[in-house]
Amino acid sequence: MTSLANHAASGFRPPAVPDVDVHGFWGERIDAVADKTVMILYDRCVAAGMFDQIDPERPVPEVRMPFHTRPDGSPDTTNVQMFWDSDVAKVIEAAAYALYRKSNPDLEAKMDSVIAMFEKLQQADGYMNSWFIRIQPGERWKNLRDCHELYCAGHLMEAAVAYFHATGKRTLLDVMCRYADHIDSVFGPRPGQKPGYCGHEEIELALIKLGRTTGEQRYLDLARYFVEQRGKQPHYFDIEAVERDDRKQFRHKNYEYNQSHLPVREQTKVIGHAVRAMYLYSGMADVATEFGDDSLTDALKILWKDLTAKQMYVTGGIGPAASNEGFTDYYDLPNETAYAETCASVGLAMWASRMLGRGPNRLYADIMEQALYNGALSGLATDGTTFFYDNPLESRGAHHRWTWHRCPCCPPNIARTVASIGTYMYAVSADGVAIHLYGKSTARLTVGSGIVTLAQKTEYPWDGKVEITVSVDAPAFFKLALRVPSWCDGAKLTVDGEVIDAASIESEGYLQLSRRWRGGETIVLDLPMAVRALRANPAVKADLGRAALARGPLIYCVEETDNAAGLNGLVLPADIADAGVAPAKDLGKAVGIEIPVKRERWPDMDGSLYDTAKPVLEDAKARFIPYHLWDNREPGEMLVWVRTQP
Amino acid sequence: MTSLANHAASGFRPPAVPDVDVHGFWGERIDAVADKTVMILYDRCVAAGMFDQIDPERPVPEVRMPFHTRPDGSPDTTNVQMFWDSDVAKVIEAAAYALYRKSNPDLEAKMDSVIAMFEKLQQADGYMNSWFIRIQPGERWKNLRDCHELYCAGHLMEAAVAYFHATGKRTLLDVMCRYADHIDSVFGPRPGQKPGYCGHEEIELALIKLGRTTGEQRYLDLARYFVEQRGKQPHYFDIEAVERDDRKQFRHKNYEYNQSHLPVREQTKVIGHAVRAMYLYSGMADVATEFGDDSLTDALKILWKDLTAKQMYVTGGIGPAASNEGFTDYYDLPNETAYAETCASVGLAMWASRMLGRGPNRLYADIMEQALYNGALSGLATDGTTFFYDNPLESRGAHHRWTWHRCPCCPPNIARTVASIGTYMYAVSADGVAIHLYGKSTARLTVGSGIVTLAQKTEYPWDGKVEITVSVDAPAFFKLALRVPSWCDGAKLTVDGEVIDAASIESEGYLQLSRRWRGGETIVLDLPMAVRALRANPAVKADLGRAALARGPLIYCVEETDNAAGLNGLVLPADIADAGVAPAKDLGKAVGIEIPVKRERWPDMDGSLYDTAKPVLEDAKARFIPYHLWDNREPGEMLVWVRTQP
Repeated sequence: MTSLANHAASGFRPPAVPDVDVHGFWGERIDAVADKTVMILYDRCVAAGMFDQIDPERPVPEVRMPFHTRPDGSPDTTNVQMFWDSDVAKVIEAAAYALYRKSNPDLEAKMDSVIAMFEKLQQADGYMNSWFIRIQPGERWKNLRDCHELYCAGHLMEAAVAYFHATGKRTLLDVMCRYADHIDSVFGPRPGQKPGYCGHEEIELALIKLGRTTGEQRYLDLARYFVEQRGKQPHYFDIEAVERDDRKQFRHKNYEYNQSHLPVREQTKVIGHAVRAMYLYSGMADVATEFGDDSLTDALKILWKDLTAKQMYVTGGIGPAASNEGFTDYYDLPNETAYAETCASVGLAMWASRMLGRGPNRLYADIMEQALYNGALSGLATDGTTFFYDNPLESRGAHHRWTWHRCPCCPPNIARTVASIGTYMYAVSADGVAIHLYGKSTARLTVGSGIVTLAQKTEYPWDGKVEITVSVDAPAFFKLALRVPSWCDGAKLTVDGEVIDAASIESEGYLQLSRRWRGGETIVLDLPMAVRALRANPAVKADLGRAALARGPLIYCVEETDNAAGLNGLVLPADIADAGVAPAKDLGKAVGIEIPVKRERWPDMDGSLYDTAKPVLEDAKARFIPYHLWDNREPGEMLVWVRTQP
Repeated sequence: MTSLANHAASGFRPPAVPDVDVHGFWGERIDAVADKTVMILYDRCVAAGMFDQIDPERPVPEVRMPFHTRPDGSPDTTNVQMFWDSDVAKVIEAAAYALYRKSNPDLEAKMDSVIAMFEKLQQADGYMNSWFIRIQPGERWKNLRDCHELYCAGHLMEAAVAYFHATGKRTLLDVMCRYADHIDSVFGPRPGQKPGYCGHEEIELALIKLGRTTGEQRYLDLARYFVEQRGKQPHYFDIEAVERDDRKQFRHKNYEYNQSHLPVREQTKVIGHAVRAMYLYSGMADVATEFGDDSLTDALKILWKDLTAKQMYVTGGIGPAASNEGFTDYYDLPNETAYAETCASVGLAMWASRMLGRGPNRLYADIMEQALYNGALSGLATDGTTFFYDNPLESRGAHHRWTWHRCPCCPPNIARTVASIGTYMYAVSADGVAIHLYGKSTARLTVGSGIVTLAQKTEYPWDGKVEITVSVDAPAFFKLALRVPSWCDGAKLTVDGEVIDAASIESEGYLQLSRRWRGGETIVLDLPMAVRALRANPAVKADLGRAALARGPLIYCVEETDNAAGLNGLVLPADIADAGVAPAKDLGKAVGIEIPVKRERWPDMDGSLYDTAKPVLEDAKARFIPYHLWDNREPGEMLVWVRTQP
């Protein structure tokens, strides 16, 4: 489907969602999304009045902005939002993946009706944004800094591609191509064009998707233009502020907030709003892949190191602060107040996935897996009905999933991510296939001119043994790259029973099987999953004297329901050799960890704050569950970083 | 001097500053204040242009409010402040105490000139506030909530009393009596009077001081009126806002900020701005003493428990948050970001001192001592030249004392407190004397109709042995109450060599010697000072798994200069039996603590954030110094709560 002039031959690209059938661990989650989440998302969009804003056949809502305050002083749910097109777009995208998995005529009819709203909304010149057509007509393209206009367009492009892949229906795809053409006419270097870009990145990666799907080079070029323009002087956001006579200080104070403080190649610190940052870097990585741009990749490598070595929670959560929904100082990673927005972990997985566009490298795939299985997946209840916006690593018992959110970005974002997990698992180049994530699944991939089918049989992530059967439509030479996660010691590989020396074929953390495949080969990869006790860099003050348990790709936590209240009284041994696995209670197939610990019992301090009295250490057993499964049973305390003997 | 109708016979009142000659530990500090700090305070008032605002013979300054911004974006020092009368008042008060200690004609002339400014500033009706006379004329008494008007008056009353006691000069005292008379005419229950009170408490305790000094009952009654009015409905701050047509929301959002959310007897949680809270409670305690009001005392006992059992740092610092300069949630006591304003610890000592007005009780005196020796005294460099505004319990090395502050409340506040420490050490009732604090000193006290002279010989707080010689002008019966601090185990008492069974004469933590004193008696009190390891209530998350060392009244800390960087790598043993005392390096007579510890050495984590690698524990020795002495040598890290083996 892709036949673009600039395609760098070495690039790896994800398959489309329908190319991968996912079963097992992720399959259950996708089923929950398809069976419940997607219809819930639609219903809550209805309940929030979002279609009242979008549907041009309804009366324009009376606007209550800024937020209306209820008589009790609490903020009312707003009835319009300038970014709602994007949230509806993500619902369409998630629904598309759900429709591919399971036929659902009712859902499909509802999505068709939503798409029809957008089609009717679209202006003769191709422009299509519900806020600036219906709420603030005449104000389009005047405030790219704050108004999410191109961001909304980007999410609708992603939705259009997904809906086309899943249903074959072109309506939204055509609408979005017309809109993309319009945007391409408005923005650019030519006289009369605006040299701008969006305050909230997203359109960059979306244009790449649209370009890959339609084969339209202009979309790739426009993505690249937006990336290249960002942060240049004179600063576009200054120029447009003068043009609209806006003398107010930017409320986020500086352009670090939206990563436009410097041209992208000069940026070395991951900074500002976390989701924006991840979407920018994702778009940069896509452009680097499409244009074979090593200078962009080099800039991204510096940013990658900056994020993962100084600013990331062990769950793959990022952006500790609520105030800017983003980054603060290096090593500032408080656990209880962690913002760690679900969307930000999704964004990190997106960026990591796109860093793999330059070739398999577990530096990126390991973090992708860490973010997906922990900080992102925690955002969705196991039954698919409720959502975390922020994902703290400690709770005193009052933090629970929402049914909806004033800014409903996370629910459809985690839904679309889970439902499209197959696109993260595999990647394809002209002459190779990479398996980045293990999980029961069957992928039908186009490699060169042939079709390669890979079937994984595994209980991953509960067990590290993976059996992969290779089928081909005709014998073909290609490279099959299998990731050995950095958390794994002693990986073993056989092909058709023949032991392969893993070290001899390892490159960037992947085992590279380069051969002519006849079909019918069975590859067995055994990835031992020992329980690990992770320590944080001592510069992370919040984690000093504490350890986090992990097994395979999963970070674990303790919950009150398994361990009683007072989780900060638990003290792990210095050596965790006695840790063992055990079924996690009431959590399906989930593998838990049990370990003998000490538990502090405090003497009665008689209401005093400070005393020479010391706690007594009692023998106890702690029961850990995977972090992403917390708050699915009895509500209560939760803790990832548990105190440990030095 | 006091002969007021309402004097409750049982009340204990502090001596005047000239009644106590202080030597030893505090004497050195008073000398530094007298020799250096007071003139520095004056000079910095001059440099900040504060007298340009106050002196009616100078041109009215061109106002740069709200804060002027420098070209580089940093805030300029403002050139006027509505609360500057109060800061100058505290300078006068501190100077008065210094003048009593040491003659200083130059300083006295300067203070006389400042007092002359105020005298000229005073209006015909007695009103006197530089802001509302010179900067915003016509606006007086319109915004008690925000404008510090009565607060400024209060500090000037305290200054007037102090200057009168120290120099015998009545000018400022007379000015302030006229102003107090004016205030007494403006505020009250009669028709045409305002039923208001100040948003920043202070006038209440100041009117008590003025009443005690002048014998004027109306001042005590007015103090009581302000206390009683606070928080009543309809709310005065609402009424005055309507009267001045002010529809803006109170920027601190609710009246908890200034403790006017409820009538004072209904308040049970210590809340809002910390200094305001302490000054209110101090005033309430004074009123309770003067009027023998048990219902006020009962309310204060609840607040006392609330503060000291849930909201106080181990240093006696209070008010963890910068945002409201005050209180947050129970047990929220972060160490590195502790606001713990110097003024707030001073205020706590003031409140504690006034709780002792109802009789000796170490519940209050212990905390008074804790706040004075630690969270308050840390605010002043040993050389008397620089000042902490906030007093964190941990620093990465960038926290240092200021030469001055935009809001210069703390420097004169700690100066006047140190210089008047004698008033905290002793208290006198009709038939008794209490020694609340030990320290080398001689006090000449009027007890009943006689003069009692108490001379303490001691190295306290470096050593716990105290020798007290009693002299009387004529043999007299009175009770002498000697505090045994709650931190002390095994106190021993002799009178003229005769061993007294301490337990048999103990009441509320004081040893009560009731006898006919002939003069010449020598009392020896031995208070053993073992090194203690304090643990915080486990609800204080910031201190979990940590201990603070203490000896006598002093809380200790480690500094980088004695222990190298990386103080969070130090791990105390579970049992501190091997702790010993040793001279603190380059800190005069200060007693340090040395203790064998473990020190974590981290393996090279190769820039990674999380790893299974563990630190190695090496044997080391940690050197502790008294907290109040930190940041007087090489700048660097500091830590109070040190990690400990469970």
